[in-house]
Amino acid sequence: MKFLRRMLPALAAGGWMLFAALPAVAAPFNALQPLPKQPPIPAGNPMTAAKVALGQQLYFDPRLSSTGTHSCNTCHNVLAGGDDGRAVSVGVDGKMGTRNTPTIWNAAFNTVLYRDGRAPSLEEQVKSHLLSPGEMGMPDEQAVVMRIAAIPGYRSQFARVFGGSEPVSYDNIAKAIAAYERTLITPDSSYDRYLRGDKKAISGQARRGLEEFQKVQCVSCHFWVNMAGPVPGLAFKMGEGFYELFPNYPGTAYEKQYRLADDIGRYTVTGIETDRRMWRVMTLRNIALTAPYFHNGMVKTLDEAVRVMGKTQLNKDLSEQQVQDIVAFLNTLNGQFPKQTFPRLPATPNGGVIDAR
Amino acid sequence: MKFLRRMLPALAAGGWMLFAALPAVAAPFNALQPLPKQPPIPAGNPMTAAKVALGQQLYFDPRLSSTGTHSCNTCHNVLAGGDDGRAVSVGVDGKMGTRNTPTIWNAAFNTVLYRDGRAPSLEEQVKSHLLSPGEMGMPDEQAVVMRIAAIPGYRSQFARVFGGSEPVSYDNIAKAIAAYERTLITPDSSYDRYLRGDKKAISGQARRGLEEFQKVQCVSCHFWVNMAGPVPGLAFKMGEGFYELFPNYPGTAYEKQYRLADDIGRYTVTGIETDRRMWRVMTLRNIALTAPYFHNGMVKTLDEAVRVMGKTQLNKDLSEQQVQDIVAFLNTLNGQFPKQTFPRLPATPNGGVIDAR
Repeated sequence: MKFLRRMLPALAAGGWMLFAALPAVAAPFNALQPLPKQPPIPAGNPMTAAKVALGQQLYFDPRLSSTGTHSCNTCHNVLAGGDDGRAVSVGVDGKMGTRNTPTIWNAAFNTVLYRDGRAPSLEEQVKSHLLSPGEMGMPDEQAVVMRIAAIPGYRSQFARVFGGSEPVSYDNIAKAIAAYERTLITPDSSYDRYLRGDKKAISGQARRGLEEFQKVQCVSCHFWVNMAGPVPGLAFKMGEGFYELFPNYPGTAYEKQYRLADDIGRYTVTGIETDRRMWRVMTLRNIALTAPYFHNGMVKTLDEAVRVMGKTQLNKDLSEQQVQDIVAFLNTLNGQFPKQTFPRLPATPNGGVIDAR
Repeated sequence: MKFLRRMLPALAAGGWMLFAALPAVAAPFNALQPLPKQPPIPAGNPMTAAKVALGQQLYFDPRLSSTGTHSCNTCHNVLAGGDDGRAVSVGVDGKMGTRNTPTIWNAAFNTVLYRDGRAPSLEEQVKSHLLSPGEMGMPDEQAVVMRIAAIPGYRSQFARVFGGSEPVSYDNIAKAIAAYERTLITPDSSYDRYLRGDKKAISGQARRGLEEFQKVQCVSCHFWVNMAGPVPGLAFKMGEGFYELFPNYPGTAYEKQYRLADDIGRYTVTGIETDRRMWRVMTLRNIALTAPYFHNGMVKTLDEAVRVMGKTQLNKDLSEQQVQDIVAFLNTLNGQFPKQTFPRLPATPNGGVIDAR
């Protein structure tokens, strides 16, 4: 299958060891795997309850943006699909982004972050979001650290969680947020229950959709636990991206209608010719909850997204029955969202930290 | 005392009945009253758990804004002081407001809403926020209703909560949100415990501050349960505002420095000459958590706000000791924030409702 072909370089480079070490991987290799309740945790950022609680506060704190208007949750809304429901995001000062916001749910299973894979970890992604002029808009790392260090309730928590002489550091802010993000996992979808043996967990139409999904080779990119290719430890390491050309079959009517080739993807990051229109393969988990679709958010519905993928990636004109069956299957990928209590954001009594008018 | 003078018209107009009916009102009238756990509930919008749960979802749902970027919570952040910590708010499309966002905490005790008192109830305030071009930016009531009615999980809840042939109506959207807002009460501040008899609940400095607060006559406007004058049922009815001239003593250096007289307040709503620079008296509850201060958010710290009020309202140059003592007292007004669980926002599987790019 195609994914094996794409994984060969990594496998040849020592990935087999990691691959073989995973108990769930049996022969023959099964591309369909339920979502674990826990994602991979990097050695450099172990999880603790106090760190996660701190990270949750920071995730919801708009004081991490220059204007005090945007928190991580503004675009990656965990009360919903982990995205913003918009074609493209809106950052500080009303600045419009150019790409559709991916979901934060299960992002911890990604080997690279951003649609062009330019961040090698959740920690690095947090750091670049904060300083992006069209996102959180903070001027520099120092400004972020000063903002957070000015808040007594944060100072005490950072000291407790990280210790050291400068507990409130840019690295530690990113670590705390990333630790919280690693709790944003949605296991136990009906698909997961189906894979675990509950054959009645999904409808007959969804089962047909799953068969089509494999038969027409959607699965060649959208496989493994997060339906987005390798996860850290499985052939790929963190920072190694699993990319695909999009559109793979150029020149379709869809490409023109939805301007799919205007943005040249990973090439904008690397400048390498073979990266032109390469994009990180995106998770399909909770995909029914994250319309609109694709990197520019131009496709409004999931059924149309399935049609577009069939044509642009697999050169297939899917029948309406195939489309509806696959959509029914994709709806089984909506997981269980963890219950969360609102954090209280630490106060700065008698004054504030937002200078912008 | 001044507040009695100000209340006389209302009392003469039948307010005494309501006034006398309140068991907490004993002779002599005591301006200092602990915050009840429940605010007045209007007969037209009784509270139910299902309505409050629905209202909470709507309160946090950015799909109530034209761009899908702003929820009620964006500016009235209940994870924090119920405001946005900014001088003035930022609405859709990056549009800057002209006034500082008041806290939503305990807003249910107000007889009128907005700093200029232009909304006679929480319900009416919700309705005008949604359609304000510089706030939520929805084009008209119908657009709001269509947006919400397009979301299956809302349709079913509105039917269950409100019944009738058109359960998803503009009125009902406002009612649900207002019902949730009436749960946003912060009782049991250390000040409340002090008033209830726990004399050690506040420090000696705070007690001195409370004495100064009464002696210099801050209390002549900032009295009763919400430290903002009458509440519905106490002399004033919903829609009847308790206003004060600000600056009361014009021409101070503060007025110039902080441009306090540029915005002429309630006059902009009524066009009545005597409403020029009249402003609704604001709550002091949680005031330490809602910097910056005043209608234009020009004053950054609470101590400076106390100095400004002393001079512009009472024609007094407060000593530094008086200021610090009053600030210490004001910090005892921070209440207990109710624990809340994140709502899940009802989804629109396979598509979205935000059209804006």
